[in-house]
Amino acid sequence: MIVLNGGSSSGKSGIARCLQAVLPDPWLTFGTDTLVDAMPAAMRASDAGIEFAPDGEVVVGPEFRTLEAAWIEGVAAMARAGARVIVDEVFLGGPASQQRWQKALDGVRVLWVGVRCESAAAAAREVARGDRVVGMAASQADLVHRGVFYDLEVDTTRSESMECARTIAAHVE
Amino acid sequence: MIVLNGGSSSGKSGIARCLQAVLPDPWLTFGTDTLVDAMPAAMRASDAGIEFAPDGEVVVGPEFRTLEAAWIEGVAAMARAGARVIVDEVFLGGPASQQRWQKALDGVRVLWVGVRCESAAAAAREVARGDRVVGMAASQADLVHRGVFYDLEVDTTRSESMECARTIAAHVE
Amino acid sequence: MIVLNGGSSSGKSGIARCLQAVLPDPWLTFGTDTLVDAMPAAMRASDAGIEFAPDGEVVVGPEFRTLEAAWIEGVAAMARAGARVIVDEVFLGGPASQQRWQKALDGVRVLWVGVRCESAAAAAREVARGDRVVGMAASQADLVHRGVFYDLEVDTTRSESMECARTIAAHVE
Amino acid sequence: MIVLNGGSSSGKSGIARCLQAVLPDPWLTFGTDTLVDAMPAAMRASDAGIEFAPDGEVVVGPEFRTLEAAWIEGVAAMARAGARVIVDEVFLGGPASQQRWQKALDGVRVLWVGVRCESAAAAAREVARGDRVVGMAASQADLVHRGVFYDLEVDTTRSESMECARTIAAHVE
Repeated sequence: MIVLNGGSSSGKSGIARCLQAVLPDPWLTFGTDTLVDAMPAAMRASDAGIEFAPDGEVVVGPEFRTLEAAWIEGVAAMARAGARVIVDEVFLGGPASQQRWQKALDGVRVLWVGVRCESAAAAAREVARGDRVVGMAASQADLVHRGVFYDLEVDTTRSESMECARTIAAHVE
Repeated sequence: MIVLNGGSSSGKSGIARCLQAVLPDPWLTFGTDTLVDAMPAAMRASDAGIEFAPDGEVVVGPEFRTLEAAWIEGVAAMARAGARVIVDEVFLGGPASQQRWQKALDGVRVLWVGVRCESAAAAAREVARGDRVVGMAASQADLVHRGVFYDLEVDTTRSESMECARTIAAHVE
Repeated sequence: MIVLNGGSSSGKSGIARCLQAVLPDPWLTFGTDTLVDAMPAAMRASDAGIEFAPDGEVVVGPEFRTLEAAWIEGVAAMARAGARVIVDEVFLGGPASQQRWQKALDGVRVLWVGVRCESAAAAAREVARGDRVVGMAASQADLVHRGVFYDLEVDTTRSESMECARTIAAHVE
Repeated sequence: MIVLNGGSSSGKSGIARCLQAVLPDPWLTFGTDTLVDAMPAAMRASDAGIEFAPDGEVVVGPEFRTLEAAWIEGVAAMARAGARVIVDEVFLGGPASQQRWQKALDGVRVLWVGVRCESAAAAAREVARGDRVVGMAASQADLVHRGVFYDLEVDTTRSESMECARTIAAHVE
């Protein structure tokens, strides 16, 4: 299992797709977006669910946490059932977020990867993408890495997704 | 857990979204599309993965089956971990497809729902949607229901998604 | 040229795609969404651009109107240059909206089509689609037809997109 | 009017969105995708329309050319009606493609911009994007620039979209 953690527009999804292309075996990729898309529309904009503040900050409520816990158990079960899984995550809670995954992944071999991108570069790419709430990239760029440990870190500020993917792939046995 | 089984363009996704809106608790929805989107791009058009024949027929290979088995285990684990889950499925293998889910869901309370739609109506809606390979709706309309058992069946040929969702919701305790 | 006017979730886009499938010649389809997608991201949520009120009401500002006027001229020019064009529109301003098109389309043969859908049915389909601001369907269902004249009206409340498309196609020479 | 010409995955769309963000006035952006999305589904895979060869080569037929000619006239009319327009194009026909636009844009002030990206970099980004036919980036990288003249060229191989957009914006009066 590979867990990619990085802020919005840091380039995680691109790296995940390149990893799927360069790794010899088939890997599944799931992200925070997979979970959010699975939730009821009402929860994406409610006190109990997920909220996007005008400055791009993301706030999640207790019902989100409950469903997320079950989601994490489910992805861990896929890994235990033999699937190679890449998780594309945003640890908004820093070490608390990582511990949620760690606990569920007990006994599963995991490569923890930090995907860094300088705040200004991520913010500019957020504008270029055009499909994200502006401000998320800047507000998350450093926050999500605080107190999180990694086996490996890549930085997309001056490296392409494919290059980062090859670096990560070299650490996958 | 609710498993909706029906052919392409039979209206399963619309019913799932309406169910999420009318059921009092929050439910997660996952579909075959969730799994296919998680797979490597190369597997969506390879002998080992999934193939769309020109007439809309879908053929899946052994590597698809392996990842699908892990996916099913994972979704079952989410249900066991307390999440309410709607699965939006296309049982291309009929009873063999259903048995794969049944085995993984042992001990989980499941409402099996057949989503029927007359072949001609589904084919016309496929044209109206404009985002599907033309021919899938017609080739799957009857096929996916052969030999499959249900707790409940709805028919979208002359009923709206919301109406079908209310019928299903009345069977959820 | 065919102009389809109807509220959000009344089924215009589905009818347009069915028309493209049943009409013998190739037709281009453009909609309000084409224009909105072409605008700067900042205009989609600003006083000068377009705004979605929490109840689904849409408000557009002066800069939107300026770009819209040029857009309408452009689409009219495509029709004059020989393209068969279907326009999928929401006449939020009723007769004022229609007059903007009429003026630009002077000399072009136009089939004006009203696409009706009962408010409750459109609102339920909006939930089933899951990709629209909830409330738009209900707030626009009647509003967009007030004071507008048509060569032909279809009602999707109890008719499928394909059926409506065939009715319209019979009026196209 | 700004015409951006470059191969698939060279970064044109990202530059266009950044231009919309940094230019003081509102600009509309239209691309080849806008036209292709407006066409009947059947034309996207027919002899008369557009075809994607397995190696990513794009072939267009006579009916595509007819609709494209009307489309170009329409976009030119929008510019004449006062809209500021960015066109995001792929000159598969090289100078012949440019002449089609030049003829229609007679009298309109145009900034012709070449968006270059080294073939290997574009091909890697195509994999990272995951939503394009693999092979298009490599086959188009040089082809689309042969015999085309520009007021300005940018290269995304080692420059970000925002940086290229600022360079272009400095040439817009």
